[in-house]
Amino acid sequence: MRRVPDGDNRERLLCPDCGYIAYENPKVVVGSVVAHDGRVLLCRRAIEPRRGFWTLPAGFLEMGEAIEDGAIREAAEEAEAQIALDGILAVYSISRIGQVQVIFRARFADPAAPGFAAGPESAEVRLFGWDEIPRDDIAFPSVHWSLAAWHARPDGPLGAPARNPVEDPRGTRSLPPNLESAL
Amino acid sequence: MRRVPDGDNRERLLCPDCGYIAYENPKVVVGSVVAHDGRVLLCRRAIEPRRGFWTLPAGFLEMGEAIEDGAIREAAEEAEAQIALDGILAVYSISRIGQVQVIFRARFADPAAPGFAAGPESAEVRLFGWDEIPRDDIAFPSVHWSLAAWHARPDGPLGAPARNPVEDPRGTRSLPPNLESAL
Repeated sequence: MRRVPDGDNRERLLCPDCGYIAYENPKVVVGSVVAHDGRVLLCRRAIEPRRGFWTLPAGFLEMGEAIEDGAIREAAEEAEAQIALDGILAVYSISRIGQVQVIFRARFADPAAPGFAAGPESAEVRLFGWDEIPRDDIAFPSVHWSLAAWHARPDGPLGAPARNPVEDPRGTRSLPPNLESAL
Repeated sequence: MRRVPDGDNRERLLCPDCGYIAYENPKVVVGSVVAHDGRVLLCRRAIEPRRGFWTLPAGFLEMGEAIEDGAIREAAEEAEAQIALDGILAVYSISRIGQVQVIFRARFADPAAPGFAAGPESAEVRLFGWDEIPRDDIAFPSVHWSLAAWHARPDGPLGAPARNPVEDPRGTRSLPPNLESAL
């Protein structure tokens, strides 16, 4: 059942028999824009949600993992790529679905041998030049935002991380059903 | 019981009767260094852990909340302060205890009336000049790190966020029991 536990100030999911409280917390997504010779690495999703659409190598941070290690692991799992991180490119709140996304700017650990391949959750992994990016087939708004953040600062020092674009309410606001499909 | 669910690659807490999987995910902590006239706002904790020690207004991000809104809410709850955020000051991985901390640089929303008071989880709230900070009575390592990050850039543009200091392994590594007390 849902009620406000003693000493708390909001409703939680709680067992009326034993009192166990299942806190529902936002999750951390870590990922990266991996670039090589001006091209960026995208993975075509082999799984739902948004199967068939293109995304960054990214996923949920695991317990006991630092954000950097999580981003490196996701690139290994989804794109079979060994990467090195430059720094934090963007921090997005996708509060509509309870996510905080930390996106790194990255490159291949060995730029002389930029290896990648489709991991189990990817149907295809490719490097795209800026003008080749399949913009109509991108899986999530934050992929668009991350690519734009990368394009604004593809190399050199990373400044303040990009944040949710003010002109794009997706991510933080509930949308009417007819707009959900645009995600 | 703990075992690796089908299609997964790590152990999860799972019910052998109904198959329910309780994913344990890292949590997001949001907080801020609120400064006024070169002094910083600290709260003396009225609750465990680290009751009696000084910390930043900070706490767990709630479901449905953007990181900015969470940091503003925590300052209101713990320090009864209305604040405005400058930007992201630091991003720390406290992977040892499954936390990602996003710390903002902030000021009072109305600098002409910098109101604050102890909220229910604070015993005392005070502004400290840099040389007055009770360094021996700070609650958590990341409070030290955040204060140092603020001191390095107390105003003007915020650049790349501070990260875990390389010389301080607290946060990401398990520590021997005799060092735990130093936290």
